[in-house]
Amino acid sequence: MVNIRVGIIGYGNLGRGVEIALQAQADMELVAIFSRRGPAGVSPVDAEVKVEYLDAISAYQGRIDVMILCGGSATDLPEQTPAFAKYFNVVDSFDNHSQIPAHYSKVDEVAQAAGTTAVISGGWDPGLFSLQRVLAEAVLPKGATYTFWGKGISQGHSDAVRRVEGVKDAIQYTIPIEEAMDRVRSGSQPELATAEKHLREVYVVAEAGADQAKIEETIVNMPGYFADYHTTVHFIDEATLQAEHQAMPHGGFVIRSGETGAGHQHVYEFSLALDSNPEFTASALVAIARANVRMHAMGLTGAKTILDIAPAWLSHKDPADLRREDL
Amino acid sequence: MVNIRVGIIGYGNLGRGVEIALQAQADMELVAIFSRRGPAGVSPVDAEVKVEYLDAISAYQGRIDVMILCGGSATDLPEQTPAFAKYFNVVDSFDNHSQIPAHYSKVDEVAQAAGTTAVISGGWDPGLFSLQRVLAEAVLPKGATYTFWGKGISQGHSDAVRRVEGVKDAIQYTIPIEEAMDRVRSGSQPELATAEKHLREVYVVAEAGADQAKIEETIVNMPGYFADYHTTVHFIDEATLQAEHQAMPHGGFVIRSGETGAGHQHVYEFSLALDSNPEFTASALVAIARANVRMHAMGLTGAKTILDIAPAWLSHKDPADLRREDL
Repeated sequence: MVNIRVGIIGYGNLGRGVEIALQAQADMELVAIFSRRGPAGVSPVDAEVKVEYLDAISAYQGRIDVMILCGGSATDLPEQTPAFAKYFNVVDSFDNHSQIPAHYSKVDEVAQAAGTTAVISGGWDPGLFSLQRVLAEAVLPKGATYTFWGKGISQGHSDAVRRVEGVKDAIQYTIPIEEAMDRVRSGSQPELATAEKHLREVYVVAEAGADQAKIEETIVNMPGYFADYHTTVHFIDEATLQAEHQAMPHGGFVIRSGETGAGHQHVYEFSLALDSNPEFTASALVAIARANVRMHAMGLTGAKTILDIAPAWLSHKDPADLRREDL
Repeated sequence: MVNIRVGIIGYGNLGRGVEIALQAQADMELVAIFSRRGPAGVSPVDAEVKVEYLDAISAYQGRIDVMILCGGSATDLPEQTPAFAKYFNVVDSFDNHSQIPAHYSKVDEVAQAAGTTAVISGGWDPGLFSLQRVLAEAVLPKGATYTFWGKGISQGHSDAVRRVEGVKDAIQYTIPIEEAMDRVRSGSQPELATAEKHLREVYVVAEAGADQAKIEETIVNMPGYFADYHTTVHFIDEATLQAEHQAMPHGGFVIRSGETGAGHQHVYEFSLALDSNPEFTASALVAIARANVRMHAMGLTGAKTILDIAPAWLSHKDPADLRREDL
């Protein structure tokens, strides 16, 4: 039974992932995709899906229960989430951790005034990982929590490599260090800098005639990005980059080791291993969109995060079925 | 700042674990332990803690915000949870999965009428594992979820071995099969019976002169308990049982493998490795007790489960701090 009407704002990898994720949810339907590029600039997975210019969005008030914002955190979401929360319930995946409190305040003010529900920072980190960090610390207050990322692509680091002289194209993988994870699991609660938890692996397509030794040296010594890390640089040709490095895997680990009583150790561990980062992020946003509509119906308005969402609200199942089948 | 006043009903391993867990929570205080055995029959970890006969509990109405029920699921909780929900907010760890819907209904009726908040089936399974199963399926609706238990002691199986002729004492460990977990992680979504997911390891102290070969044969062929499993039996002496098998470790895994789009595989995995099953279960109940009091203040009365609790309600931290530090 379809009862939640959804709109997508922005149609890159994430917007496409949301369209795909909605196809798997029987109680939700995609009403329209909104894009600055308009119908001619967007090719949905399902050619039947309606595409509108972003300017046409106001005509959809009352016809869409929740908008999923699929723009970027750098410039799109800081503007769009408050702007659209004025008229719609919204969900975003704002992931600039240090800016979350400011983004929350700005969105909360608009959503409170408008009586809409606005869930920010869905996805998996922030998102599912945040939820695990909070749960783990609530249950085990004496302990330490560690987050490891990867194996996955870091766009920021890939971009930094592409700016090196002589580099034609490049991709960078962040890889968690197994030995550091094992130290955490042992309960020793080590002090670990980010560089002690992760390796960096770079695949470079060099310009013809470029000095590869110099490129490698520039990369591994780049301050802020690579200098503190153990970094491996591989030179490959363009065909290999296209053939083997176009997937968007990611994932990571949240591990808390904590103690109760007289030295009893407990390890709480959560991990994700994802073939497609945007499709999984989109799947989380879609479940959150369902919870958003339910929270709005309960009168819970203003800015919210995954930390404000009871698990049952995310599920398509009836609460009695959840208790019987999943509890 | 202490603001949540807690009572413990029942003082076995779990009640003792709750007392210990409360010591680690700065915003909660233990007002009294209630036991059928009374003050003479109970030795709290902290000798200063007040112990009362269970009969004296009615004098504490209005002086305790939430009662944590630490009795067993077989006979105590089916009676006690509805009985005490009439007068107090309560939390229990009712873990008889097939009886949860009936227990929920009975408790809900009383708590709705009394205007109290009653969270049933806290702990880790049911409890944290249930929450993970619901989250994983909400985000990845196309997929399969698997629960593995162990390494940990099964009381039911240990008791069954102790009833075998010639057995003086025994303990049974349930152990998840690594190879089955790896098949699940591969995304192949295998059909696995419980016996294909777990091994059983038994440590037996035999009576003097007993026929060990016969004991082993009786155990490994015991229908319902061992016949379907790969079971290993070790004979040890009483001193070794006392020295090496008095700890109460447990844990397990919830793994969902799911698919999005055109064959992108994702693995969602949660695990616990616990030195002390009762102390960790108690730690979960204490965090849930905090959420219970907050839900009661919000007017959320009746029977609830961990599926109805937003993560932020479990935490001692301020919501703004959670967003800044954990989101």
